[in-house]
Amino acid sequence: MKASSYHYKTLKDAPSDTELVSHKLMIRAGMIKPLASGIYSWLPLGLKVLKKIENIIREKMDKGGCLEIYMPMVQPKSLWDETGRSDEYGPELLGFKDRGDREFYLGPTHEEVVTDLARKEINSPKDLPLTFYQIQAKFRDEIRPRFGVMRAREFLMKDGYSFDLSETSMKQTYSKIKQIYIEIFNKLKLDYRIVNADSGSIGGSSSEEFHVLADSGEDLLAFSDESDFACNVELIEEDDVNKIPGMDSPDGMGKLDVKKGIEVGHIFQLGNKYSKSMDLKVQDNNEIKYLEMGCYGIGVSRIIAASIEQSHDEKGIIFNETLSPFNLIIILINQKNDESINLKANYFYEKLKDAGNDVLLDDRDCSPGIKFSDAELIGIPHQLIISKKTIESDSYEVVTRKDLSKKEITEEELFALFS
Amino acid sequence: MKASSYHYKTLKDAPSDTELVSHKLMIRAGMIKPLASGIYSWLPLGLKVLKKIENIIREKMDKGGCLEIYMPMVQPKSLWDETGRSDEYGPELLGFKDRGDREFYLGPTHEEVVTDLARKEINSPKDLPLTFYQIQAKFRDEIRPRFGVMRAREFLMKDGYSFDLSETSMKQTYSKIKQIYIEIFNKLKLDYRIVNADSGSIGGSSSEEFHVLADSGEDLLAFSDESDFACNVELIEEDDVNKIPGMDSPDGMGKLDVKKGIEVGHIFQLGNKYSKSMDLKVQDNNEIKYLEMGCYGIGVSRIIAASIEQSHDEKGIIFNETLSPFNLIIILINQKNDESINLKANYFYEKLKDAGNDVLLDDRDCSPGIKFSDAELIGIPHQLIISKKTIESDSYEVVTRKDLSKKEITEEELFALFS
Repeated sequence: MKASSYHYKTLKDAPSDTELVSHKLMIRAGMIKPLASGIYSWLPLGLKVLKKIENIIREKMDKGGCLEIYMPMVQPKSLWDETGRSDEYGPELLGFKDRGDREFYLGPTHEEVVTDLARKEINSPKDLPLTFYQIQAKFRDEIRPRFGVMRAREFLMKDGYSFDLSETSMKQTYSKIKQIYIEIFNKLKLDYRIVNADSGSIGGSSSEEFHVLADSGEDLLAFSDESDFACNVELIEEDDVNKIPGMDSPDGMGKLDVKKGIEVGHIFQLGNKYSKSMDLKVQDNNEIKYLEMGCYGIGVSRIIAASIEQSHDEKGIIFNETLSPFNLIIILINQKNDESINLKANYFYEKLKDAGNDVLLDDRDCSPGIKFSDAELIGIPHQLIISKKTIESDSYEVVTRKDLSKKEITEEELFALFS
Repeated sequence: MKASSYHYKTLKDAPSDTELVSHKLMIRAGMIKPLASGIYSWLPLGLKVLKKIENIIREKMDKGGCLEIYMPMVQPKSLWDETGRSDEYGPELLGFKDRGDREFYLGPTHEEVVTDLARKEINSPKDLPLTFYQIQAKFRDEIRPRFGVMRAREFLMKDGYSFDLSETSMKQTYSKIKQIYIEIFNKLKLDYRIVNADSGSIGGSSSEEFHVLADSGEDLLAFSDESDFACNVELIEEDDVNKIPGMDSPDGMGKLDVKKGIEVGHIFQLGNKYSKSMDLKVQDNNEIKYLEMGCYGIGVSRIIAASIEQSHDEKGIIFNETLSPFNLIIILINQKNDESINLKANYFYEKLKDAGNDVLLDDRDCSPGIKFSDAELIGIPHQLIISKKTIESDSYEVVTRKDLSKKEITEEELFALFS
């Protein structure tokens, strides 16, 4: 993509009402734009990151045999009356009436809708096991939306739902999807921990949360430095939390450490809570069985904010290769009156694109200083700098965003590096 | 995809409240499932078709330099007050209050939101021309939703919006996007016509509609059999319409014919209607200029229904290669107790997939009759039939869905055909 035909505009300062660094940086980088409290438009740069995450989730879910569907955002209240959640869910559930005076909710989650779908679609044990998922904009009417897309009212979520004949089989499905989640978060290259969690209003007997570690996290996690042991110590008193670091891990492996985490995924063994209240059952031999369900969420838009909380510096975002909207930015120095720079840059641009790179060519007519600071702000992993001097000496500067280290390489080395 | 691990369920009969053939067939094929009046869930088979259309639209829009964004579905009423459309739009505009008693609408279209975004983002003529688009679920509270996804309340739409400095430049952008639309509908292999149209509540000076020709269409179109001339004769009296067929085309090329059409796209030259009422302007030299806008819609979910109206027979849907969820279905005959059939089918399946085919392997444990009628119903362009006999004789039956013609080919010919 060439900056001159992209919509690529940054801000020097963040609005005064932003607190979290990810919120400030996403606004300054031109990834999102607020429309109303907790409601944001996604600009091209932000949407590009969102789509990269979506695609990784989709790829891994599909590979694991989960089937993508798309359920309506507008849901009849009557379904929520069946499970009793019309009353239980609380004021985050936004309701309205249509022109025929029928009551609906704007979907914050889809357990009722998917259970209704399943009772229409599943007639026999042969249809099981089955896992549906969707990637969709959700709405939760938060009382105090803040922190940008970290706690927005309208947000993008991947929600999945599994159906099994027995508890044993449901637990197998749950483990399989937990494994898919591990693959997703590994591929996203995030530093995360999996912790046991309280199931909250979703219900069910057991659930685990995926947390991205970051100093600004709202949850406090204790975890072993040697094993997978991790738990949420949110409800433990501060004095006791202070004693945790250095303690032996309860699983006997390693010492405990305490860090803050941002919840980006939550998986639940729902059991038959929804299938019983909504009469989702099949006949197995001569026995009627209520289906065993699981549900599996990922906060797609929240992942971006969490990854920025985990990885940034005073100059801006530090995206990894997987999440970054582009993996390489070519910065042209004083190209305006020098066609040779433009020609060389275009040649590099096309050749690097052909080699599979996702390249942003900063061909804007502005000062080198603005280009450098913008490239640092939006956090593209690698910068390639092209000027009259670099062309003449066949010595191109490549800057790594993470540590801002620089190296001079020849054209040949450049193509070897980004091949 | 193997049917045994897919959710592939068809219905013998359509529900009694379905009228249109596309509605009946989409329900029977298991593409969609109703949730409430005019509100549908998309099952895996239907969503697969929807994604194919989405991807074609995205590919062509991106190639044409349009930038994808994502705007909120929940929109502040205050923006609609600025343009006066809170009052004008009518009862299809669904409104509600959030928990803080602020008024919102559920987005049926996004002129106000995008104009608000543009006045925050566009500060100079250098930012122009600019075209944003998004693919998103929209909601219109139709008084009588019917005909399935043809006239649903929640539906998937591609909406695009262009911003230019002058009327001349806006008209150039409009022509460019019209050309992109032509490429999209050509690639979708639909028989369509472009007609001048009334701009309705969207406003602006000029607009054109893209109509898929089908006997069940709601609009009446007159068009030349030799040129691109076409117009909507919806408002002409029936007696006069009957006189049109055979008349000379007004452009002097060919004779006129009259057919019914289904509107699947609509492009508008909006002018400065929204930019003036919402104060979207830039300074050009010493002159303040209100931006010239265009807007461009495609009914993504409606395209599926329209394509089925255009192409079906008494056995079911006849998808073309571009729209079909799969291009080939392998039907196994009595494979249950014959491992050699399963082995051969799996070999074919993997090899045909590797050659770039999108294959559905019908390995379900059910009668050949059910498999044939399901394959005909969901309309996959080609069927490959494998039985003990075909393997032994190296003679495989390939059925073309369109005319149900059959031919016997060898394994070698098969791989040549689907390479």
